[in-house]
Amino acid sequence: MNKLLIRGATVLTMEGQDAIIKTGEILMEDGWITHVGLPGSAPGYFDMDEVIEADGMVAMPGFVNCHTHAAMTLLRGYADDLPLMQWLNEKIWPFEDKLTGEDVYWGSKLACLEMIKSGTTCFGDMYAFMDDVARAVEETGMRAVLSRGMIGVAPTGSNALQEAEELVKNWNGKADGRITVMLGPHAPYTCPPDYLAKVMDLAAKLKVGIHIHVSETRTEFYDILKQYGKTPVQHLDSLGLFKYPVLAAHCVHLEQEDIEILAQKAMGIAYNPQSNMKLASGIAPVAKLLDLGATVGLGTDSTASNNNLDILEELRVGSFLQKVDTMNAEVIPAYRALQMATIDGALSMGLGDRVGLIKEGMRADIILINTKEPHMCPQHNLFANIAYSANSADVNTVIIDGKVVMLDKVVLTINEEEVMAEVQERAMRLAGK
Amino acid sequence: MNKLLIRGATVLTMEGQDAIIKTGEILMEDGWITHVGLPGSAPGYFDMDEVIEADGMVAMPGFVNCHTHAAMTLLRGYADDLPLMQWLNEKIWPFEDKLTGEDVYWGSKLACLEMIKSGTTCFGDMYAFMDDVARAVEETGMRAVLSRGMIGVAPTGSNALQEAEELVKNWNGKADGRITVMLGPHAPYTCPPDYLAKVMDLAAKLKVGIHIHVSETRTEFYDILKQYGKTPVQHLDSLGLFKYPVLAAHCVHLEQEDIEILAQKAMGIAYNPQSNMKLASGIAPVAKLLDLGATVGLGTDSTASNNNLDILEELRVGSFLQKVDTMNAEVIPAYRALQMATIDGALSMGLGDRVGLIKEGMRADIILINTKEPHMCPQHNLFANIAYSANSADVNTVIIDGKVVMLDKVVLTINEEEVMAEVQERAMRLAGK
Repeated sequence: MNKLLIRGATVLTMEGQDAIIKTGEILMEDGWITHVGLPGSAPGYFDMDEVIEADGMVAMPGFVNCHTHAAMTLLRGYADDLPLMQWLNEKIWPFEDKLTGEDVYWGSKLACLEMIKSGTTCFGDMYAFMDDVARAVEETGMRAVLSRGMIGVAPTGSNALQEAEELVKNWNGKADGRITVMLGPHAPYTCPPDYLAKVMDLAAKLKVGIHIHVSETRTEFYDILKQYGKTPVQHLDSLGLFKYPVLAAHCVHLEQEDIEILAQKAMGIAYNPQSNMKLASGIAPVAKLLDLGATVGLGTDSTASNNNLDILEELRVGSFLQKVDTMNAEVIPAYRALQMATIDGALSMGLGDRVGLIKEGMRADIILINTKEPHMCPQHNLFANIAYSANSADVNTVIIDGKVVMLDKVVLTINEEEVMAEVQERAMRLAGK
Repeated sequence: MNKLLIRGATVLTMEGQDAIIKTGEILMEDGWITHVGLPGSAPGYFDMDEVIEADGMVAMPGFVNCHTHAAMTLLRGYADDLPLMQWLNEKIWPFEDKLTGEDVYWGSKLACLEMIKSGTTCFGDMYAFMDDVARAVEETGMRAVLSRGMIGVAPTGSNALQEAEELVKNWNGKADGRITVMLGPHAPYTCPPDYLAKVMDLAAKLKVGIHIHVSETRTEFYDILKQYGKTPVQHLDSLGLFKYPVLAAHCVHLEQEDIEILAQKAMGIAYNPQSNMKLASGIAPVAKLLDLGATVGLGTDSTASNNNLDILEELRVGSFLQKVDTMNAEVIPAYRALQMATIDGALSMGLGDRVGLIKEGMRADIILINTKEPHMCPQHNLFANIAYSANSADVNTVIIDGKVVMLDKVVLTINEEEVMAEVQERAMRLAGK
């Protein structure tokens, strides 16, 4: 049995705003959190395989990024500040057409590296060449929920369904249980009802959830309304999609009834504030969704529309954007934003039984944040300092599934130089430079 | 004569999107930039007092923060997520009532430390106990534009005018020219016309500019409209304020005519996107202001409403917020956002002849940014990587007025531990803890 102890940290369990343990101890055994308590309370101190002394650090659950396309790190900075359709048609899609599985492997590995360094321990991904993404996840020690993106209207549509089924068979529950798989029908405007019916049959057969883009742009909203006489959310609801565990990404353009449907029936919503801002898609009505009890996690979307994978940025901007959009400074306070970045993200992807809290019986996805920096001084309120002042470089140590993947800012599972050199070379070649 | 050379950096002079010098050289003599060029082009290599080898770094002008209240670091995280008037009445003002000059000195010093570490070399400040702020600026090596905040309707109103005059006499042009002084009438709703008349007389007499909050909230907009029959901007214009060099902070609630007045007549506008979002004040129409030729810099506002002094965050969110607000992904592209954070900020505060570009004849306010990080890989576009992907911890070295104030992430002018300990103790005492 592997026993790992964190000592001396201020523990934010995320079980409540008062659930703060000063100089606390967290015991992990074979990847499970088996004890959380006061100094000296962890049993068997002398039996530990590893002890991390974390004085001056905050320990909290690792961040959860519910929606990204990890391999698109290859396109970071390749096309910015363009209207959506021009961006897709002239830049993103032609670049993506040239991608190989190896490119996707290296791009995903760079994404895992960036996520680990910024405190993200679990991500929800939708892309192609998912075997190669899974390989990057397995090697780097990340936790991930993977989906083969499926475009029903494309010639590859039925092939993608096959690949999705194979992905479930080959990878669901693998990498010591760190990988789970969902089906990834891209969006209502790329997946017609008959295709979605096949997806739902497959979900029922394989007992997996569904990750889908929903109502990201105004164009999509009106196109679907015109084609089906229903909003995207009501269209999907009428097809029966929400009978399955659905992670709905974006949900920017919503009517009141859409909000009610999502709050009642969606497993979770991935709120991508910075991507929605940068692509000028709009502002998701997250404050209203939360009021009605929706489960909302955060997503960065890809680095082509963000341009990083920094969940601390996302939770801060996500909160501030709701405040200004509702003209109400009280919505999504600091603690609520941190919930979205941790437990609510986990719940949105069906992992709330496993990660998102520091609690006995959960898997150990834990980060240590260094709070002894000028921008987090003084300490009136730790939650506010982390949500509103911290930056991702303050993340010092990262534990995923009970394994230390970054210790004192050194990533242990990835050769940083190698990954950056590979991605630089591949990205330039793909861009034709 | 002191001669300092930077070698090997990729130089973004901010004189244009094509003004990129790979492995460039920047020569500084007695604080002046005297040469910018290709490798080997700087004269007198063997005469240097100091050479900074900057391979893999980007050299660019230091960031400019046009609007803050530096000493309010003492209140970081003290009061968040509250409606504006409750926030001010119940939390901020009672806390501030207890501040001493020494508190302000230490709070400002912490702010200078945080700004240096995040690449800001110049800031515009409005507060009280400005001698103590100036002392912090002088010691830490920062460049600053200081204003005594003046509330005309307060009992301290006429005293504040005196203090403002003394501040100009004691500090304008001091600290080797790093400090300039402006007058700081707080806002149109706290400074009635007769008081503003006195401020303008004083500005004319002392030949200094004016830093003022303008139309920050909807309440202010309608209150001024009700009281004077004019919008805040038109009210100030009718009083003749814009005959003086005016730095107008916020400018959130504007009519078309207000936008035209500001574009034509204001020296500069301090856009504070995150503060305006967090306090639910609104979204300044910056894209429209820029279209009409306004000079717009960035401000963080205080750390009570932000909660940090990170200009990289501000420029990113400032750009994204305009994109989503106008539903146009093309507004404020990456390079434009970086201009706002550098030269346009300098111009907004009347320092455009001195700082904001890497150019012969300017004072040397230069930062080196480490781009060899996963979140800035690959390098398709350096401007996009810095504006949209970098974080403040990537700032490696900071030069202000030709002096190295941070080298390889070590701040040379400030004892970090001491400042953080002092501020922590003072903040807790002031909060009554």
